Amino acid sequence: MNDSRHRERMQKKKDVVDERIAKASEERGVLILLKGNGKGKSSSAFGTLARSLGHGYRCAVIQFIKGRRETGEYLFFRDHPQLDWHIMGHGFTWETQDREKDIEAAQAAWSIAEGLLKDPNYQLIVFDEMSYMLKYGYLEPEPIVEALRQRPHHQNVIITGRTMAQPLQAIADTISTVQDERHAFRGGVKAQPGIEF
Amino acid sequence: MNDSRHRERMQKKKDVVDERIAKASEERGVLILLKGNGKGKSSSAFGTLARSLGHGYRCAVIQFIKGRRETGEYLFFRDHPQLDWHIMGHGFTWETQDREKDIEAAQAAWSIAEGLLKDPNYQLIVFDEMSYMLKYGYLEPEPIVEALRQRPHHQNVIITGRTMAQPLQAIADTISTVQDERHAFRGGVKAQPGIEF
Repeated sequence: MNDSRHRERMQKKKDVVDERIAKASEERGVLILLKGNGKGKSSSAFGTLARSLGHGYRCAVIQFIKGRRETGEYLFFRDHPQLDWHIMGHGFTWETQDREKDIEAAQAAWSIAEGLLKDPNYQLIVFDEMSYMLKYGYLEPEPIVEALRQRPHHQNVIITGRTMAQPLQAIADTISTVQDERHAFRGGVKAQPGIEF
Repeated sequence: MNDSRHRERMQKKKDVVDERIAKASEERGVLILLKGNGKGKSSSAFGTLARSLGHGYRCAVIQFIKGRRETGEYLFFRDHPQLDWHIMGHGFTWETQDREKDIEAAQAAWSIAEGLLKDPNYQLIVFDEMSYMLKYGYLEPEPIVEALRQRPHHQNVIITGRTMAQPLQAIADTISTVQDERHAFRGGVKAQPGIEF
């Protein structure tokens, strides 16, 4: 492709992009769902967390499930002065096999989540792996939807997890599905620090 | 579901998970591709970066395209002592409309990338938006594939971008496709600091 054709093609692309940017003018917080069976949902939420902290915003994370004690993300973020990091789960539910304890942990996590969703000081809140709480019936969708609807106007919320309850999808602004096309794990490569945890 | 049925179901799940973990025993660096049209690819790479830094690993980022000067991720990460952050692009190619300058920037970025791929001190390298360089023909796939194949055994590499060249997919260990199911931008919400940049 020669230079003038390149310029012409890129000018057309720029016109389309500029028009779309001009149309998107509403300023408010968004609800982002990261779902699907692929690798990268929680790490995407933590990358957005870094982005928000970089702009000086106050943020919070609640991890609803936690399989390991010392993850790289926790070691990295835990001392940041603008961030609250709550680890509520006591492990994957198939590790614990204790439904009563799982329900207790889920409800304790949700009561903290509710407080954050009423606090306008928090610009971004991440509910990591929250979707499992709904899938296993540890939490009901209605109070969650209601709290999300009533949250401060500018507050952004990210929820991650494989399957996402329909009532959450109904009120989400952005939904990305991360599809597993290939995974090193199936190729025989061991889970490693810095990549999987 | 009652408690004993829950326990039984979770025990079965645990057996399957444990068996898969036992089979994945190879310890080496992986090549991860994050592709697709959905929101969350670069932020996923930056979340994994936080995870690797949290474990004390030396890391590097090359941003092949950059539309904005001061992103939240750059503001957040730039002073980390274990991290090199290179911003090589001078903007999206449809903004610059200058093919010659784009090619120069791409090749300068690649020469830094090549050096990193030979350096065993780097545990994780992120090539953010590199796929566009191949799509527009600014870089050829063969030298990239070769450098990736020859890299240190333990080195992890993440490449992000919408469309991913076939030669890169052929050698990747993990491929996640992020699909855009819904985006707040199309709903009229303006791109905002902390979420989009």
